[in-house]
Amino acid sequence: MSNQLPYYMPTGREVEVFEHSFHKKLPLLLKGPTGSGKSRFIEYMAAKLGVELISISCHEETSAVDLLGRYIIKGRETVWQDGPMTKAVREGAILYLDEIAEARPDTIVAIHSLTDHRRELYLDRHNEKIKAHDNFLLVASFNPGYQKGWKELKQSTRQRFISMSFDYPPAEVELEILQNEAGIEENIGKKLIQLGNKIRNLVELGLTETSSTRLLVDAGKLIKDGLPPRLSCEVAIVQPLTDDKITIQALKDLVSLVF
Amino acid sequence: MSNQLPYYMPTGREVEVFEHSFHKKLPLLLKGPTGSGKSRFIEYMAAKLGVELISISCHEETSAVDLLGRYIIKGRETVWQDGPMTKAVREGAILYLDEIAEARPDTIVAIHSLTDHRRELYLDRHNEKIKAHDNFLLVASFNPGYQKGWKELKQSTRQRFISMSFDYPPAEVELEILQNEAGIEENIGKKLIQLGNKIRNLVELGLTETSSTRLLVDAGKLIKDGLPPRLSCEVAIVQPLTDDKITIQALKDLVSLVF
Amino acid sequence: MSNQLPYYMPTGREVEVFEHSFHKKLPLLLKGPTGSGKSRFIEYMAAKLGVELISISCHEETSAVDLLGRYIIKGRETVWQDGPMTKAVREGAILYLDEIAEARPDTIVAIHSLTDHRRELYLDRHNEKIKAHDNFLLVASFNPGYQKGWKELKQSTRQRFISMSFDYPPAEVELEILQNEAGIEENIGKKLIQLGNKIRNLVELGLTETSSTRLLVDAGKLIKDGLPPRLSCEVAIVQPLTDDKITIQALKDLVSLVF
Amino acid sequence: MSNQLPYYMPTGREVEVFEHSFHKKLPLLLKGPTGSGKSRFIEYMAAKLGVELISISCHEETSAVDLLGRYIIKGRETVWQDGPMTKAVREGAILYLDEIAEARPDTIVAIHSLTDHRRELYLDRHNEKIKAHDNFLLVASFNPGYQKGWKELKQSTRQRFISMSFDYPPAEVELEILQNEAGIEENIGKKLIQLGNKIRNLVELGLTETSSTRLLVDAGKLIKDGLPPRLSCEVAIVQPLTDDKITIQALKDLVSLVF
Amino acid sequence: MSNQLPYYMPTGREVEVFEHSFHKKLPLLLKGPTGSGKSRFIEYMAAKLGVELISISCHEETSAVDLLGRYIIKGRETVWQDGPMTKAVREGAILYLDEIAEARPDTIVAIHSLTDHRRELYLDRHNEKIKAHDNFLLVASFNPGYQKGWKELKQSTRQRFISMSFDYPPAEVELEILQNEAGIEENIGKKLIQLGNKIRNLVELGLTETSSTRLLVDAGKLIKDGLPPRLSCEVAIVQPLTDDKITIQALKDLVSLVF
Amino acid sequence: MSNQLPYYMPTGREVEVFEHSFHKKLPLLLKGPTGSGKSRFIEYMAAKLGVELISISCHEETSAVDLLGRYIIKGRETVWQDGPMTKAVREGAILYLDEIAEARPDTIVAIHSLTDHRRELYLDRHNEKIKAHDNFLLVASFNPGYQKGWKELKQSTRQRFISMSFDYPPAEVELEILQNEAGIEENIGKKLIQLGNKIRNLVELGLTETSSTRLLVDAGKLIKDGLPPRLSCEVAIVQPLTDDKITIQALKDLVSLVF
Repeated sequence: MSNQLPYYMPTGREVEVFEHSFHKKLPLLLKGPTGSGKSRFIEYMAAKLGVELISISCHEETSAVDLLGRYIIKGRETVWQDGPMTKAVREGAILYLDEIAEARPDTIVAIHSLTDHRRELYLDRHNEKIKAHDNFLLVASFNPGYQKGWKELKQSTRQRFISMSFDYPPAEVELEILQNEAGIEENIGKKLIQLGNKIRNLVELGLTETSSTRLLVDAGKLIKDGLPPRLSCEVAIVQPLTDDKITIQALKDLVSLVF
Repeated sequence: MSNQLPYYMPTGREVEVFEHSFHKKLPLLLKGPTGSGKSRFIEYMAAKLGVELISISCHEETSAVDLLGRYIIKGRETVWQDGPMTKAVREGAILYLDEIAEARPDTIVAIHSLTDHRRELYLDRHNEKIKAHDNFLLVASFNPGYQKGWKELKQSTRQRFISMSFDYPPAEVELEILQNEAGIEENIGKKLIQLGNKIRNLVELGLTETSSTRLLVDAGKLIKDGLPPRLSCEVAIVQPLTDDKITIQALKDLVSLVF
Repeated sequence: MSNQLPYYMPTGREVEVFEHSFHKKLPLLLKGPTGSGKSRFIEYMAAKLGVELISISCHEETSAVDLLGRYIIKGRETVWQDGPMTKAVREGAILYLDEIAEARPDTIVAIHSLTDHRRELYLDRHNEKIKAHDNFLLVASFNPGYQKGWKELKQSTRQRFISMSFDYPPAEVELEILQNEAGIEENIGKKLIQLGNKIRNLVELGLTETSSTRLLVDAGKLIKDGLPPRLSCEVAIVQPLTDDKITIQALKDLVSLVF
Repeated sequence: MSNQLPYYMPTGREVEVFEHSFHKKLPLLLKGPTGSGKSRFIEYMAAKLGVELISISCHEETSAVDLLGRYIIKGRETVWQDGPMTKAVREGAILYLDEIAEARPDTIVAIHSLTDHRRELYLDRHNEKIKAHDNFLLVASFNPGYQKGWKELKQSTRQRFISMSFDYPPAEVELEILQNEAGIEENIGKKLIQLGNKIRNLVELGLTETSSTRLLVDAGKLIKDGLPPRLSCEVAIVQPLTDDKITIQALKDLVSLVF
Repeated sequence: MSNQLPYYMPTGREVEVFEHSFHKKLPLLLKGPTGSGKSRFIEYMAAKLGVELISISCHEETSAVDLLGRYIIKGRETVWQDGPMTKAVREGAILYLDEIAEARPDTIVAIHSLTDHRRELYLDRHNEKIKAHDNFLLVASFNPGYQKGWKELKQSTRQRFISMSFDYPPAEVELEILQNEAGIEENIGKKLIQLGNKIRNLVELGLTETSSTRLLVDAGKLIKDGLPPRLSCEVAIVQPLTDDKITIQALKDLVSLVF
Repeated sequence: MSNQLPYYMPTGREVEVFEHSFHKKLPLLLKGPTGSGKSRFIEYMAAKLGVELISISCHEETSAVDLLGRYIIKGRETVWQDGPMTKAVREGAILYLDEIAEARPDTIVAIHSLTDHRRELYLDRHNEKIKAHDNFLLVASFNPGYQKGWKELKQSTRQRFISMSFDYPPAEVELEILQNEAGIEENIGKKLIQLGNKIRNLVELGLTETSSTRLLVDAGKLIKDGLPPRLSCEVAIVQPLTDDKITIQALKDLVSLVF
């Protein structure tokens, strides 16, 4: 692994699958919870493959116009301006649609012709049809753990992607991440992982999501910066997870057991 | 069948029905699930008949203005610009409205005068009435398998179309498709079809849709590219179909039985 | 009946009622299911009376601005452009609002002053009041068979119209239509009508609408063009009516009984 | 009563109440069903008092901007254009808001300062405050018979109006109206009123509204024009009231009893 | 009390509370039903304190842009135009937001910085921060009697205001108001108050609101103008309060008992 | 603590946590009820750290465009104008998003890249990527006490913040605040705190929120200004908390017990 690559610790065969998808030009969907490293993985793969990365955080108001482009007025002229998706297709970049299920339907439909045998993008408004660059790859992420009421991806969209599940890393990998990112000692790192795993196993607390690696890293940073460990864990792990006073107390008790 | 035609394997009498509809200028509705080859069939027929194809993926925000055209400002002038539907009507193309039931009501109403004895398009905003070109044919697709809550097509729209059901191809046809598109050996192709059919028959899994030919092709491509068969099937077939951990395990077990 | 008139077969006293409504300048509402000949009847009457016909297919987004007119920018000037309703009122045409209940409320309110003793149209935006031309007549259609949830017409609107019910024509009239439009032999026509009536009487199938004359005509056209009768009936009558596999089989069995 | 006045037959003390409201500058609300003569009454009173009448049919999209006015672009200038309400306030007219409860909330709020001791109109966008002309009177109508789900008028709006109920006229008044408007003989008029009253008393039919005087007049006009009485009553009275086949038959039986 | 002040009869210690709030620059919320004199009270206090009054009737579409200001195009320039709230803050006026709970959320948020220790208004679009003038005071009204479904004020907004309840005035005050505004004799005024109080106590009628002083004043005006008392009370009090025929009859009986 | 700092009384270790978060560039979320001093705390910390503070009160219509910036037309040029978030990122300020959960989803998504290892802001429309200034810190507030139906923050957003709970201050701190802000004597201050705590403990009253320190300060100001204590408490504490007459009476009884 080259030194210039951004820091990323693989937790399975995700690098291999990504490389074959890229080679066969098959769109890729990463499924997994908050903070499981999906965004970092994409950054790492883009750097490893030497391809530019264009990231879009999708939300309820992301529309095709935002992604494809629009006419803007320059002086007396009306000029077409490529949006980020069009740029990626034209110039050959990895386009990362983070939380694709949040985007508006016209966004999702806009990728249909890009994700089948055609690999073309239609710009109706600009009256242009673009063949995707050889280096273009569409990658999307999706959090299947969201409870009912959150948007689903339609099967007619899902079946257009090779898919991989992401989950929190195994303890030894997580320890390496913690030491690398927060700069803490192994001893503190192990305690944080112990705390993280205790929380992840406490299904009876009814948390909508559980402690991601990110929370452990944040706590580590504060400890490293001199804030007392218990207070660091309270503000970086406990308080972000819940507002319920009884659950907060239960989690603080857990913290006191570890630190 | 000429060599220049795009690859398409007929699975019934769909070519015959299309040709008569085209001849009698009767609009056509293709009903069927994701990945059953509707889009490919249209591409094939357009090439076979030597008529241009204009495809529109409909979605919740597809409106008549997008399809019919609009005034744009060019320098000091306001100029009318035909939309794709108007272009197809005027110049004689096959207009393919993919997933028509998703489009907004004004889109669907805009086709009324095109789909009865009048075969005319009214451009209210441009104050123009266009007689459809002899080669114009309207084709639409619709996925009736979507569960309740998805939009229905009104009978006053449906009764304007000749309709055909599409389904997954028979095994011998699917094998030929797999070998042709993924470049795999017959042996691997047969195993993939065996796996596909096992999944299609597992009604008790409660999948909202089942394995399309496209998923089998994707798995084939990854195997051909050197990814191990079990991992290929997991990321190309199992993970796209579901997020439920128990169902994923059941499908992975099925994969292990076959490969 | 003159030769230049478009083809229309009266099925009751609708011609007489239309003529008296036109004479007394009373707006007319045609109620009836899909494909029962309402649009054709209007075309026929407009031609018979020698008055221009302006047709509007109403939908959820038809608004008063679309019908009344708007200001557009021409060079440096802002110019008023009459919409189709204003044109009809000003120049004396029959204005046909197809499926009026679908239109937005401002559309329906815009016709109020046109449909009472005033017979005037107010263009608030253009600051103009137009007395309706002597030849102006407002005709609307409405499908009362749509199930609950579909929009109703308010009584304050309904009571402004003379109203007539349309239904499918009696067998002898339908036969003449079939022969005239599809060019088929009496023998085939009679079988299609037999099939149509069997389907219309099968209340237990739970179809939301039943086989219109239009579907029989389409089947006739395909048969005339050489497609086998059973396949013609399947794609022109059975598949448009339903997506339910069991109902499709039941209808195909009916077809086999007749052909 | 002068000869130039439009035709109106008073059915109670409504003229007296209107004149005192006008004199004391108290806004007036007319409550009553479809076709009970509210619009005619306003036209009559405006003519009687010699004041201009400006009528607005309110609907779900009537907004304050439509009524108050807006800036429009004329050449290089932006010019303020009074809306109909502003015009009425400034120049002294009767402003008739038909079905006020349908209008959007900003419309209803716009009239607040006009309907209390201030009698002023605020044009925020034009930065102007207009004292109402001495002849300005606000009159509104409202149909309280609409079933639940229809919009209600808030009490903070209602209590700003003097209110009167309108209902169908007594038989002798209705006969005079019928003869005057349809030009029919007393004999036919009496039968129509007999039919109208029979329908009005048939509560068990569950009609959402009942036969207004307008329907009787329309039937009278068709009879006078030569259409047979039973057919005239069917298309002018029965069909406008309902789409239900059994109710239609019941009403046609009623017609046969009378004619 | 000076002669130039608008007519207002205090009913409690509201003048004192208003003066201290103004002195301490504490925003004020007036709570109370329709027609209880809130608007008059504000007019009176503004005149008494010699401060300009700017009134806004809030509704579902009142947005921050309407209140804060906007850019408008003047010739070739884009010029900022203060909205009424900005004007009040800059120049020192009492800003009265009538029915504040009806306004859109961005309106309510816009007042946050004005109603705490900052007393500043932020104009994001104009990139300006305005310190409130010493004479600026924000006053709002709110009708808490509205039934469920009507909008509530959030506590984070309510706790920013000093609040007072308004109710109908005591009999002796109400009599003075009646005589002063309608010009009627004491005898008639007492009867109207007797009628008003009878209606206010008839909880069993289920009226959504009850007879405000305004209704009594309107009846008094009509009586003074020569309309018979019973008819005056019917059109000015009974009909505005309800559309229910049985309740109308009960209220008319009450009127007959008094007059 | 320097004299130039705005007045703020710490109630826990919040200053310490803020300083470490700022040092480690970790975004901060303040959770707590109305009037618990969150806004003041941010003002204090910004002054203490010598960093500019940019505050945004979020609401249902706060969108990314408002925060990021937009193109505006200046003469003949289209010029980009930074919004407040972009300004804070570029120039190094504390950006305070008050009630972040109220903002529209595109706002919340816009902060994603700012709140992870990237610390970058993407301006899609301006085609610019800004590395956050070293002094940039994102701080947000959130009121978790709001009942169901109010918007929640998604975990994928929450886990990006260090979080702290705010609550009402302990009695000795609150007394100091009261004396400092309202200028009242200790004696009056203690009575107000006694009243506040009684109300906070009256869970059985079912108040949606309880008396904040702000309400006590307002009452203190009025008392200091000469309004009688009971009346001051009624208009500054009791009436803001509820509209229910029985609860108002209960709270007034409490006031009478204390004063």
